[in-house]
Amino acid sequence: MQRPNDLAGYRSVLRDLPVMDAAAAAAAAERNGQLTKPPGALGRLEDLAQWYAGWRGDARPSLAAPQVIIFAGNHGVTARGVSAFPAEVTVQMVANFEAGGAAINQLAKAFGARMDVHALELDRPTADFSQGPAMSEAEAVAALNTGWDAVDPGADLLVVGEMGIGNTTSAAALAAALLGGDPGDWVGRGTGVDDAGLALKAQVVGEGIAANQAAMSDPLEVLRCLGGREIAAMAGAILRARLLGIPVILDGFICCSAALVLSKAAEGALDHCVAGHLSAEGAHGRMLDAMGKAPLLSLGLRLGEGSGAALAIGVLKGAIACHSGMATFAEAGVSDG
Amino acid sequence: MQRPNDLAGYRSVLRDLPVMDAAAAAAAAERNGQLTKPPGALGRLEDLAQWYAGWRGDARPSLAAPQVIIFAGNHGVTARGVSAFPAEVTVQMVANFEAGGAAINQLAKAFGARMDVHALELDRPTADFSQGPAMSEAEAVAALNTGWDAVDPGADLLVVGEMGIGNTTSAAALAAALLGGDPGDWVGRGTGVDDAGLALKAQVVGEGIAANQAAMSDPLEVLRCLGGREIAAMAGAILRARLLGIPVILDGFICCSAALVLSKAAEGALDHCVAGHLSAEGAHGRMLDAMGKAPLLSLGLRLGEGSGAALAIGVLKGAIACHSGMATFAEAGVSDG
Repeated sequence: MQRPNDLAGYRSVLRDLPVMDAAAAAAAAERNGQLTKPPGALGRLEDLAQWYAGWRGDARPSLAAPQVIIFAGNHGVTARGVSAFPAEVTVQMVANFEAGGAAINQLAKAFGARMDVHALELDRPTADFSQGPAMSEAEAVAALNTGWDAVDPGADLLVVGEMGIGNTTSAAALAAALLGGDPGDWVGRGTGVDDAGLALKAQVVGEGIAANQAAMSDPLEVLRCLGGREIAAMAGAILRARLLGIPVILDGFICCSAALVLSKAAEGALDHCVAGHLSAEGAHGRMLDAMGKAPLLSLGLRLGEGSGAALAIGVLKGAIACHSGMATFAEAGVSDG
Repeated sequence: MQRPNDLAGYRSVLRDLPVMDAAAAAAAAERNGQLTKPPGALGRLEDLAQWYAGWRGDARPSLAAPQVIIFAGNHGVTARGVSAFPAEVTVQMVANFEAGGAAINQLAKAFGARMDVHALELDRPTADFSQGPAMSEAEAVAALNTGWDAVDPGADLLVVGEMGIGNTTSAAALAAALLGGDPGDWVGRGTGVDDAGLALKAQVVGEGIAANQAAMSDPLEVLRCLGGREIAAMAGAILRARLLGIPVILDGFICCSAALVLSKAAEGALDHCVAGHLSAEGAHGRMLDAMGKAPLLSLGLRLGEGSGAALAIGVLKGAIACHSGMATFAEAGVSDG
């Protein structure tokens, strides 16, 4: 599949998405029924393993090469004072990722994942979306393409994460635009704003939607007008993973706002994705509900960086280890009840 | 600490339990506040890392040598027809553990844990507790001692799990005896009994409590009269871990019934334990509530074998990797808001 070079090209890709290998999933379900455990006793691990088997096209898959990709972008909307941290923290944290000092570095290492970092034009923030479109089409496509190109075709699992001071405001605007409701329903405390900051975020989101009314009928236009470069890049990477047969673990509120764009653009576009965790960012749960995703973990994380999704790699590894490694009743000589 | 040789000896140990290293926990909390993330953004991972640091006596600990121990026992109460599987499955599954074919083998391997299996006199089931005490004092102490001795003093984390056809009935009896309520509140479907099986389990639990009234005022007597060898062994191992400064991840309903005995015998006896998961066995949630433990995972597992706790090793590893591996704001040159 050739990389699209405009939003129309991305719409074409979304109209013709590959589906799960049903034969592999069925064979995995049959194997699951023969493993030395009472039926259903591994709960959600059983569903996860069969889902993974289907997307990998392998009834007895392994999970050996997970990839974590962190995208970073800067947001013009920070001029409105929507974050508890200054915008220069984005570039500082990219340096921290590159030096191995951030949470996601430790988690990627702990779960045996390759980690890549892509900083997207940090010295050129997006435009303030409360005044008009955050990005031109060329800028949005460049960001989508960065995500598209960042996926390692040899990976067997993808986690995408982000860093971008101000990006919970952008994610809230995407949610409000794509799912409706009051802006106040979608904003949260991000890295830690107070009540006044929360009210300001809601106001800015409302202004952003008003300033970009022309975009509201098309999810990719919504992404261009209210999103950020790192958010578009995550969308591009999640989409590319679909084409490569690479299952994806979604992270929290901001990652899911990128996924939501795809979900609104094409039914079933997130079938190759599982929700890694429920973030403490207030509206994440409602966003997951809207995407029909139940989180694997709920541990109060609200860091971004792909951290919740990376933690969930462990759960998926456990699920696949059981599915592919366990003995059957016949192999083990165990009575099956 | 010398190994007790009677229940009175175990009571003495329980009266004088070591506590967390408060200085190490405080130093860990101080370190946590300096790491490159917004305050609290790693949610429960932050609490976990500080809890672990306190019990390990190390403000920047590592988790490198987890131990999983599986105890297996047979239950006279299976004569009452309380399980969906025949009693010979216990010994068959022990062979499966030893051959590496069970779920717990895959999970222990996936999370880098050493795994040990202890089969406790499988050819000599406990007595049917619905008729009188399941074990003599000598038998109960021998089982506690098996657990005590099984803990590797070099381990830095312990998971205890079990296998024992019929043991959800024993665990329900322990819960009913130690926490009160109707027997029907504590029984569940175990490996998969039907409604009639469920009613029978409740009846058997009620008979067991009636037949062992003399034991009800002392938790270790309750364990002797209603428990099983593998349950007593788990209690012995959890207690020994406390003395060795080894944090414990609790598994599901049956493991927690063993922990509950300790919790009822001495306030704070489970302070070195965290609940790995919420089992699908119906009453596990109420049991965790009674112990004041919030589960790390809730994925519908109901297998036992320590499987849910082993899966949670990944969460704890992630927590400790972040805590001990991340850069501070000063080290990384990141503005702290």
